[in-house]
Amino acid sequence: MELWLKEGQIEDAVMTYKIKETLVRRMTPYQDLAIVDTYAFGRMLVLDGIVQTTIKDEYVYHEMITHIPLFTHPNPKKVLVVGGGDGGAIREILKHPSVEKAVLCEIDGCVIEECKKHLPEISYALDNPRCEVFVGDGIKYVHEHKNEFDVIIVDSTDPFGAAEGLFGGSFYKEIFDCLTEDGIFVAQTETPFYLPDVVKKVYKDAKAVFPITKLFMAAIPTYPSGYWSFTIGSKKYDPESVKVDLPEDMKLKYYTAKLHNACFTLPKFIEDIIR
Amino acid sequence: MELWLKEGQIEDAVMTYKIKETLVRRMTPYQDLAIVDTYAFGRMLVLDGIVQTTIKDEYVYHEMITHIPLFTHPNPKKVLVVGGGDGGAIREILKHPSVEKAVLCEIDGCVIEECKKHLPEISYALDNPRCEVFVGDGIKYVHEHKNEFDVIIVDSTDPFGAAEGLFGGSFYKEIFDCLTEDGIFVAQTETPFYLPDVVKKVYKDAKAVFPITKLFMAAIPTYPSGYWSFTIGSKKYDPESVKVDLPEDMKLKYYTAKLHNACFTLPKFIEDIIR
Repeated sequence: MELWLKEGQIEDAVMTYKIKETLVRRMTPYQDLAIVDTYAFGRMLVLDGIVQTTIKDEYVYHEMITHIPLFTHPNPKKVLVVGGGDGGAIREILKHPSVEKAVLCEIDGCVIEECKKHLPEISYALDNPRCEVFVGDGIKYVHEHKNEFDVIIVDSTDPFGAAEGLFGGSFYKEIFDCLTEDGIFVAQTETPFYLPDVVKKVYKDAKAVFPITKLFMAAIPTYPSGYWSFTIGSKKYDPESVKVDLPEDMKLKYYTAKLHNACFTLPKFIEDIIR
Repeated sequence: MELWLKEGQIEDAVMTYKIKETLVRRMTPYQDLAIVDTYAFGRMLVLDGIVQTTIKDEYVYHEMITHIPLFTHPNPKKVLVVGGGDGGAIREILKHPSVEKAVLCEIDGCVIEECKKHLPEISYALDNPRCEVFVGDGIKYVHEHKNEFDVIIVDSTDPFGAAEGLFGGSFYKEIFDCLTEDGIFVAQTETPFYLPDVVKKVYKDAKAVFPITKLFMAAIPTYPSGYWSFTIGSKKYDPESVKVDLPEDMKLKYYTAKLHNACFTLPKFIEDIIR
């Protein structure tokens, strides 16, 4: 018998993964959660049928969503991750010695629990004393904390269902107020190949709130089309022009100082989407 | 009844496309050729079960494999395409007014014939008077033409079966001799996510022949992992540092003057592969 996972995000172009075993499958109060072990990408977190992160390629997403804002800010001390219950963003954030506290605000405690059990390589930093885990609504958390974080990372699922409120102008205004006066915000914002309208709207909404708004791209094989966008909003520092001095002992696999600048250079069709 | 194409290149991570209809399916002397109409990417050329090009995303591959070398060379007059029977590379090459002659050397005449019939948006330039179509073996053609082409583009299938001889040091030496004294060569060289050993070998082989060898990347949703490498070998001009003045009327969808330079900035894991 062969078991295959069919990825659910794009209807007519479906990625499928051959599976060794299903490690966990449960309905949480928020979503259909599964962790499966695949032949091609190792263990994989799947929420509502959509691949969130895998052992083999998670480094791309987690390095790019964290190190771009954290190396843009000259001295990030307090960082907030909204979503990101797998802990991968926290792991990368804590590689920055300047960071005194990294708060994870994840709405679904079951994601944290199962990732701690089945994806320890990704989640281990959640137990670090510099990390504070808060299970609750990110929108409420951001609303209740003003002028507090140097960097806010929105590491959410797709903008349908549970995470819908995390995409859009009213949330970005709350994020602006939750940031310190030179703070930086970044979010994963889907693929311009399949969802150009989402990319366009998020960029426009962020641009209406932040003085500096940029889009950057990364290659992630297990996300639809393999090419993913991130939107960054900054109050003071321009992420594209900063010169990064990357510590040699950080041992990253995707991010480099030179790529920090180059990832903002967009193909023409994406320039057109956000124009 | 639903028809789906399962892409055959990677065994345990299989891309599938829902199909409207099969326009042609035949065994040629060289391969299993199909052109199918898909919901997600429109009409699609499939050789030996592997997607070669699609109406919706072909622009990325064809723009990047041609404009990078052609804008690097200051005055390309004669250009050779080895493979590329769909005609997409020829279409882009002929956008350069300096080009007097573009030769297509494709081993499988059936590819040309069927692409002319079913993919006219891609193949139309094959009838241009500046294009010369030659059906035959690329290795033989290159061997028999010395010091003739300013740019040679190897637009081949994967390095298994028919195209195997188009990857490797002995062919690159022949290409070197087929180029003029300031000539440039480029080839599609697979994805570093799934086939790092191919990328490594091709780069090493090219580097042993050409004074300047570089790798650049492009995002192609219908190729495995969505992230594709191209290897460029140059006798004189450095493709990464050239400043491109892109004519406004060229109307490209992926390539930009700024991306010409940025696409050579590699993620760390690819830097490590070719080190």
